[in-house]
Amino acid sequence: MAKTNPGRFFEDYSVGQVLHHAVPRTVTDGERALYHALYPARHALYSSDEFARNCGLPQSPIDDLAAFHVVFGKTVPDVSLNAVANLGYAEGRWLKPVYPGDTLRSESEVIGVKQNSNGKTGVVWVRTRGLNQRDEVVIEYVRWVMVRKSNPDAPAPDTVVPELKQALEPQDLVVPQGLNFSSYEFVQAGEAHRWGDYAIGEKIDHVDGVTVEEAEHMLATRLWQNTAKVHFDLTFRPEGRLIYGGHVISMARTLSFNGLANAQMIVGLNGGAHANPCFSGYTIKAWSEVLDKAETGIPGVGAVRLRLVATKGGEPFELKNDDGRYLPNVLLDLDYWALMPV
Amino acid sequence: MAKTNPGRFFEDYSVGQVLHHAVPRTVTDGERALYHALYPARHALYSSDEFARNCGLPQSPIDDLAAFHVVFGKTVPDVSLNAVANLGYAEGRWLKPVYPGDTLRSESEVIGVKQNSNGKTGVVWVRTRGLNQRDEVVIEYVRWVMVRKSNPDAPAPDTVVPELKQALEPQDLVVPQGLNFSSYEFVQAGEAHRWGDYAIGEKIDHVDGVTVEEAEHMLATRLWQNTAKVHFDLTFRPEGRLIYGGHVISMARTLSFNGLANAQMIVGLNGGAHANPCFSGYTIKAWSEVLDKAETGIPGVGAVRLRLVATKGGEPFELKNDDGRYLPNVLLDLDYWALMPV
Amino acid sequence: MAKTNPGRFFEDYSVGQVLHHAVPRTVTDGERALYHALYPARHALYSSDEFARNCGLPQSPIDDLAAFHVVFGKTVPDVSLNAVANLGYAEGRWLKPVYPGDTLRSESEVIGVKQNSNGKTGVVWVRTRGLNQRDEVVIEYVRWVMVRKSNPDAPAPDTVVPELKQALEPQDLVVPQGLNFSSYEFVQAGEAHRWGDYAIGEKIDHVDGVTVEEAEHMLATRLWQNTAKVHFDLTFRPEGRLIYGGHVISMARTLSFNGLANAQMIVGLNGGAHANPCFSGYTIKAWSEVLDKAETGIPGVGAVRLRLVATKGGEPFELKNDDGRYLPNVLLDLDYWALMPV
Repeated sequence: MAKTNPGRFFEDYSVGQVLHHAVPRTVTDGERALYHALYPARHALYSSDEFARNCGLPQSPIDDLAAFHVVFGKTVPDVSLNAVANLGYAEGRWLKPVYPGDTLRSESEVIGVKQNSNGKTGVVWVRTRGLNQRDEVVIEYVRWVMVRKSNPDAPAPDTVVPELKQALEPQDLVVPQGLNFSSYEFVQAGEAHRWGDYAIGEKIDHVDGVTVEEAEHMLATRLWQNTAKVHFDLTFRPEGRLIYGGHVISMARTLSFNGLANAQMIVGLNGGAHANPCFSGYTIKAWSEVLDKAETGIPGVGAVRLRLVATKGGEPFELKNDDGRYLPNVLLDLDYWALMPV
Repeated sequence: MAKTNPGRFFEDYSVGQVLHHAVPRTVTDGERALYHALYPARHALYSSDEFARNCGLPQSPIDDLAAFHVVFGKTVPDVSLNAVANLGYAEGRWLKPVYPGDTLRSESEVIGVKQNSNGKTGVVWVRTRGLNQRDEVVIEYVRWVMVRKSNPDAPAPDTVVPELKQALEPQDLVVPQGLNFSSYEFVQAGEAHRWGDYAIGEKIDHVDGVTVEEAEHMLATRLWQNTAKVHFDLTFRPEGRLIYGGHVISMARTLSFNGLANAQMIVGLNGGAHANPCFSGYTIKAWSEVLDKAETGIPGVGAVRLRLVATKGGEPFELKNDDGRYLPNVLLDLDYWALMPV
Repeated sequence: MAKTNPGRFFEDYSVGQVLHHAVPRTVTDGERALYHALYPARHALYSSDEFARNCGLPQSPIDDLAAFHVVFGKTVPDVSLNAVANLGYAEGRWLKPVYPGDTLRSESEVIGVKQNSNGKTGVVWVRTRGLNQRDEVVIEYVRWVMVRKSNPDAPAPDTVVPELKQALEPQDLVVPQGLNFSSYEFVQAGEAHRWGDYAIGEKIDHVDGVTVEEAEHMLATRLWQNTAKVHFDLTFRPEGRLIYGGHVISMARTLSFNGLANAQMIVGLNGGAHANPCFSGYTIKAWSEVLDKAETGIPGVGAVRLRLVATKGGEPFELKNDDGRYLPNVLLDLDYWALMPV
């Protein structure tokens, strides 16, 4: 119908276009509590105002991924409603912590378009920014999706493929103002190992698993105001509601507490692939690999670059088969930077 | 047992009686966040403090229907514990927005009684008021239910059937003090169409659907402290827990965002029928019809009278069969007034 | 793996040891709202700031059992990760109300160890304290668990079995400072019966029941940051995820509103047994027995000692069979003190 949102099709995007996404959202202690109910979230900086203050912040921020999901959710009606596939992420940065009471909105700039050779679909790259009520950018990231054309005869646009970094450089990372790990309480954080104890190439099996339920992923996805019907409507997808990829990211990240409890703040998202779809009834497990380490310039605050892999049960440390394709049990392969006490 | 609440039976009601319902409730940001997790709620005025302030309110109110459910939930132990059927609503008005931190309580006056000819049941009409901590009425509505008699030999009371309006007149509607749509942000609201763009008789298919789960409707119903066992106890109802009618109302209203995102505030409830019971596993969809339009006297603020129909999947715009009975797929037929920018 | 928590084994405990449990937690209105969504919680003191102020408190506290679960959840990684059985509770006291904004942490002192004759397991007693951000003890309790040995050849420690009270004496109970029931609103509380109306030996069937769902108990258990995999991982327990015993306690306590709505504050935990495991799909019902009554020394505030029994459906008032073992339908047998208006 004319008054409902049909979503955008490939021919509706052009490089340079700025999309102002709808429905700003004030995030509060309510969202924080729900994040702890939905995920086994135990990172102390996001659990305790006292712990956060001891680290130089005014109070405990909204979980980095919760803020990401809020920003991301707003883009769905304009970017991915007619998407065939979520192809990738790059150059994601957390620039300011989000605190209870902040109001977030999102905008995206189209930075690339490329019609596929089949003429029926194309790839769209957008750089999305999440802004708070003071118009400060709190999060930014690039995402690209494959989108259907509405009219197969619409002419192909000039191809523009943006140059994107394989990974953020340490100097790209923004350490929140005031963050200070000089009196970091390792016992309270639940983990004795610090930045110096992790070696590049080291792999960690996070051991725990969570069998996911329909009600849970729908509660989570709605909370971020991502209302794409693939996640909710069983008449639309009789084979099973597809679980929002961000639910898998948050589940894996929070499971990684067991072994990476001091990887407190996420500051960079280098890339990510939703390797296989996730459905209710799957048991999500996670493992990590230390890809890199860097200093941040802030005394006491180190950065670790981590691969975070979510699997459907299965063995840890297995990722791809011989021809380079993800194994069927791999759900997520995420590459991010986090801050850790030195 | 003597100390548990057996509920009231038909013979326990008399016209003029005032029931002071138990358990006042302070509503907070926590309830607001849960409402967004339980329903695909995206109306901007209830999502963003900034958007609400831009509309002249001090902050984002608790969703109108959340406030309604809190007020309604308190009446259940006194009004509908022994109800056979929920027959109707009328003359519902939202008189003051409810904000986080407000404490609500409810009271009901019995305004009508009529014993049924079978001598075993009767109809009771109550006018319920929800009050805040300043004793201001924030919501009022009339509801009538069919209730069992405990003692079939109890004498029939004099029949009193209240005269109720078929629909509220525009002049009955209360626009919240200070509400002002003069700098309304249509892009942020997610919908370009305004009051003048909707025509009486126009129908809108809201397209999206949500397949409902047991855990979700129980979380919602408990949140409103409606603890009627039909909604929770599978040993009491082995054929399936009955989903609280208010869950269907909220689901349909929030689905109506897609096409009616600017129907921001609910100010009047003209009537409503829970046409068929709803159970877990149903996929709820919704459509609306513009029944009327009116000016409110407040510059820039228009009123639209809407029929909101929730269905169990099925085709939009079908409501009743030839003999005037609701079709089996129709779950809800609600008639309400909402405020929209002109 | 070396960086994940393997939990402690029997030989890792010694009398006098103090365990500082990880991950402090700030509790807020969000946790309060979730408690009301997860359980049929209707006790007015925990529902309404106005009601609480009328009882002499600054605002409505976080539910006593929610505070207990937060304190308890922190102990799981250090106390019960390798536990074979949760054997008992004693000497539990609520010493200060917990308010939204408070940050809780937990510490436990080992007060007893006793190796079992099989040489493979042992019993460990700990006294746990929950502290707020002002280092005030808000909750304390003793709990004992049977724990596996990691090395069966580890020498048996000297046996120390602490002397524990069968039940707290009335003079052990701490009435929150300022609590005052002199203008208690019985209608608002939902129950006319007061302290004088309950007789020792009296039994109350709480009538209502809730059929529990997987999503709900996992939301609850995670909210308290209890991440023990038995509650979440169906690949670890293919026979069904075990429901956290605290979920059963909270469900039974909130069901007891219907008959004990004026048993407002829990101040003492004398003992408790999780008689049989609870799984998704069970319908939890509850009954209570008045075990004792006492004055508190505070005018208008009485204490009642209650047995709270949760059952899997089944008949009320049945507890054990002839040889003293719990009947198969009994899930919980809890012994606590609560405060009630005189």
